[in-house]
Amino acid sequence: MTTDSSAPESGLSRRKLLGAAGLGALAAGAVGAGAGFAIGDKPVEVVPDPDALPIPFEGKHQAGIVTPAQDRLYFAALDLTTESRGDLILLLKEWTEAARKMTQGNDVGEFGAVAGSPFAPPEDTGEALGLPPSGLTITIGFGRGMFVDGKGKPRFGLDGKLPDRLKDLPLFSGDRLDDALCGGDLAIQACANDPQVAVHAVRNLVRIAFGRASVRYSQMGFGRTSSTSSAQVTARNMLGFKDGTANIKAEDAKDLDDFVWVPKGDGPDWMVNGSYLVTRKIDMRIEIWDREPLEGQEAIIGRTKGSGGPLSGGDEFDKLDFKAKGEDGELAIGKVAHVRLAHPDFNKGAKILRRGYNFVDGSNGLGQLSAGLFFIAYQRDPEKQFVQIQRNLAGKLNDVLNEYIVHVGSGLFACPPGVTTEGYWGEKLFA
Amino acid sequence: MTTDSSAPESGLSRRKLLGAAGLGALAAGAVGAGAGFAIGDKPVEVVPDPDALPIPFEGKHQAGIVTPAQDRLYFAALDLTTESRGDLILLLKEWTEAARKMTQGNDVGEFGAVAGSPFAPPEDTGEALGLPPSGLTITIGFGRGMFVDGKGKPRFGLDGKLPDRLKDLPLFSGDRLDDALCGGDLAIQACANDPQVAVHAVRNLVRIAFGRASVRYSQMGFGRTSSTSSAQVTARNMLGFKDGTANIKAEDAKDLDDFVWVPKGDGPDWMVNGSYLVTRKIDMRIEIWDREPLEGQEAIIGRTKGSGGPLSGGDEFDKLDFKAKGEDGELAIGKVAHVRLAHPDFNKGAKILRRGYNFVDGSNGLGQLSAGLFFIAYQRDPEKQFVQIQRNLAGKLNDVLNEYIVHVGSGLFACPPGVTTEGYWGEKLFA
Repeated sequence: MTTDSSAPESGLSRRKLLGAAGLGALAAGAVGAGAGFAIGDKPVEVVPDPDALPIPFEGKHQAGIVTPAQDRLYFAALDLTTESRGDLILLLKEWTEAARKMTQGNDVGEFGAVAGSPFAPPEDTGEALGLPPSGLTITIGFGRGMFVDGKGKPRFGLDGKLPDRLKDLPLFSGDRLDDALCGGDLAIQACANDPQVAVHAVRNLVRIAFGRASVRYSQMGFGRTSSTSSAQVTARNMLGFKDGTANIKAEDAKDLDDFVWVPKGDGPDWMVNGSYLVTRKIDMRIEIWDREPLEGQEAIIGRTKGSGGPLSGGDEFDKLDFKAKGEDGELAIGKVAHVRLAHPDFNKGAKILRRGYNFVDGSNGLGQLSAGLFFIAYQRDPEKQFVQIQRNLAGKLNDVLNEYIVHVGSGLFACPPGVTTEGYWGEKLFA
Repeated sequence: MTTDSSAPESGLSRRKLLGAAGLGALAAGAVGAGAGFAIGDKPVEVVPDPDALPIPFEGKHQAGIVTPAQDRLYFAALDLTTESRGDLILLLKEWTEAARKMTQGNDVGEFGAVAGSPFAPPEDTGEALGLPPSGLTITIGFGRGMFVDGKGKPRFGLDGKLPDRLKDLPLFSGDRLDDALCGGDLAIQACANDPQVAVHAVRNLVRIAFGRASVRYSQMGFGRTSSTSSAQVTARNMLGFKDGTANIKAEDAKDLDDFVWVPKGDGPDWMVNGSYLVTRKIDMRIEIWDREPLEGQEAIIGRTKGSGGPLSGGDEFDKLDFKAKGEDGELAIGKVAHVRLAHPDFNKGAKILRRGYNFVDGSNGLGQLSAGLFFIAYQRDPEKQFVQIQRNLAGKLNDVLNEYIVHVGSGLFACPPGVTTEGYWGEKLFA
C-alpha cells in the first residue's frame, strides 16, 4: 500500500484506461477532461461529464455528507470479528489508503487489479477497470458496538471515548425491526454515479477487512431521494413524490454548522467536524399506495404530486403555510400531513441533512415489490434531531403515511471528521 | 388509454417537465435535444445526452434485443392468474399502449400521474415524472405456461400455437435451481439508462396486470455485461473480466439473421421476426474467486483481465487461436478455458446474442455478497444455441468456472415480433 493517490507506473490504472475505454461512459460532446476543439479560429472548450469526475477525498469533513448526492448507493454495515486494537487501527489505515485510491479512480493496492505477481490474488477485484471515478465518495461511521460490548464493557481500549450521543435509538411506535438489518460496528456508505463503482468500493473494503470485520447487511440504492445541493433537482421517492425539498443544502452554511457538523466542546474532541449518521430501511406497501386516490396521496404528504408545491399554495420551494385553509374551511396542510409533522416548526426547530436512496430488492412471495426508501440522515445530535422528528412521525395516530410504510432496519453511527493527506479515518480516536 | 404516444394536453407530461426538471439529468454541455448556440457567427450544435433520449417502440422486431444495451435492467416474470382468453388479449393490448407511452417518456394512461379525477388512484405511479425517456425499452416474452398447463392441456385457446422450441430447458449438470426463480408465463425485460425509469415501467405494467397476472420473481441489474453494438465498450462482470467481447453485435446483419431472428417457415408464423429469450440467474462465489491468483483467473477465462485479449496473444478483439502454445509447450487457451468451451468452433457454430447484467442483492447470512450475473440471451433456436453451449460449459468436469458460479434461476420465453403503430404485442398469435 502507498499513500500516493496516483496510479503506480507498473499498473494498468483506470485513469490510463479512461482515454480509450472510458469514453463510452462520458456523454456525447464530452470527449475527455479538459479536451477541446475549434470552429474556425474560435476554440470551443468541451466540458467533461461532471458525473464521471473524481471528488476530493481529503478535507475537514468526510466527503459523502454534504457532497451533492450522487445517483447510486451501496451501503454496508459490518461487525468487528477481532478484539485487537492494533488490528482495528491497521484496518482503518488500510481502508483509508484504499478509499484514497478508489475515490480518485485508481485500483486498490500497489499493483492493482492486473499487475503484481501472477501467482497471488490481485490486490484489486477489477470490475471497475476502465470506469471513470464517477463521483465516488466513501464515508465511514463507527457504531456503538465498536466502543462497548453488549454488557457495556469497553472494546479496543476505547474507554471514555464513547460519545454520549451514540446510544441506541429508541424503538418507535410501528417499528418492525429485523435484527439482521440493524446495527453494525462499522458502516461504509459508498455513493457514486455508477453502481458498479460503488459496488467495487464496498467489495474491496470488505475484502481488506477479512479476518477483522464481516458484513452484517448491505443495501443497494438508486434515484437519490434528497437533493443536498441547491443546484440539484429534487428527485422522487417510490411514492412518486418529490422528497427532500426542504432539506438542508450544502450551500446553507449556517444550517450545516447548527445541524450537521459537531463543533468543538460538543462531545468528545475526536468527533469535532464529524457528524452522526442515522440509517433506516423503510419498506413501502407500494401496491396499496398505488390504490390511494391522488387527493388522498397529496393530503397524506401535504404537497402536490406534480410540482411538489405545498397544499397551502405556490410552487415547490415556496414557504409552507400551516395556517392556510382551503375553500372547505379545513386546513390546507392537514394536522397529520407528513410535511407538517416533519417540519422544524413542530420539532423544536430540528432539521436533519437527508441523503436517502430508493431501493428495489425484487419481489416478495406475494408478487409485490420489495421496495422502499433506504433513509440516511446526518446530524449533530440524533436525540434532538432524528429522534425528535421520528417520534413526531411514528405511530398510526400521527402521520397517516405509516399505513403505507414500515421501518425494518435501523442504524446509528458516529462519522469521524475528514482525513488529512497523511492521516487515516478515526486517527484522533486512537491518538 | 389512447394509442397517441404524445402526452395528453391535460396532463403534466414528463416531456413537458423535461425542460425544467430534466436538465439535471442531462450532461453538461447538453442543454436539450436539438438546442444550439453560436460562437460569433458560427453555430454550435449541442448534442443531447444520448442516454436520455427515447428509443422507438414500434418496428419489425421488438426493441431491447439488438438495441445497444442500456446500463440498467429491471426484469420480471409473471404468472397468469386468469384463464380467460379475452382477459389475456386485453392485458396485452393495455401493456402495449402503456409501453408505447412510457418508452417515449410519457405517463401511462389518458391522464397520467397527476391529472384526471382527484378521487381516483392516478393512472401512473409518478416516480418517473421529470425524468427523460432514458433509452427505455420494454420487451416481452411468452412462457410455455401461457400455452399449456402442467398437464399439457392448452390454455387461452392457443391449441397448436405452442412453438416446438418453447420446451423446458434441460437440467444441466451443476444446476441448483430455485423454483421461485424459474419459469413464468410472461416476461418483461425493461432496460434503461436510469434504474428509476426501468422500475417505473415494470411497476406500472404489473399494476395494469392486477387480477390477470402476478409477479413470480423480479430482478434488478446494472453494468451491462455484453455490448450489443460495436460502438459500445465491453463492460465487466463481477469477476472483473470483460464479458461479451465476441458477442453478436447489432451491426452483424448476417449473424442476426442466422442466429437471432426467427425467419418465415422456421416454426409458427406468429413468431416470424421474433426471438427466443433465455434467462439464467447465476450466483457467483465472489469471495472465493477473489482468492484466486491472477494467472489462475485468466487461465479459467482464457483471456487477460486487463485488456481482455485472448491468452493466445493480441488485443481484445483479436482472433482466438485455440492451437497456440505457450513457452511451456501447453495450450495458451487451455482445454477447459471458458472462452474455448463457449466458442462457436466447439459448439457446431452456435452463437447467441447476450445482453446480461450484473446484480447485487445485498449480502447473505455469511456476510458474503449475494451477487452475480443475470444472464440474458436471445436466439432463433434455444436447443441448437443456448442448450448446446451450456451443455458444453456445465459440469465440474468441464468449465473450471463452475467452481465459482451456480445457476439458481432459469427461464425460456418466446418473444413475438415488434408491433405496428396500431398493433399490440402478440397480435398474430391471437389473430
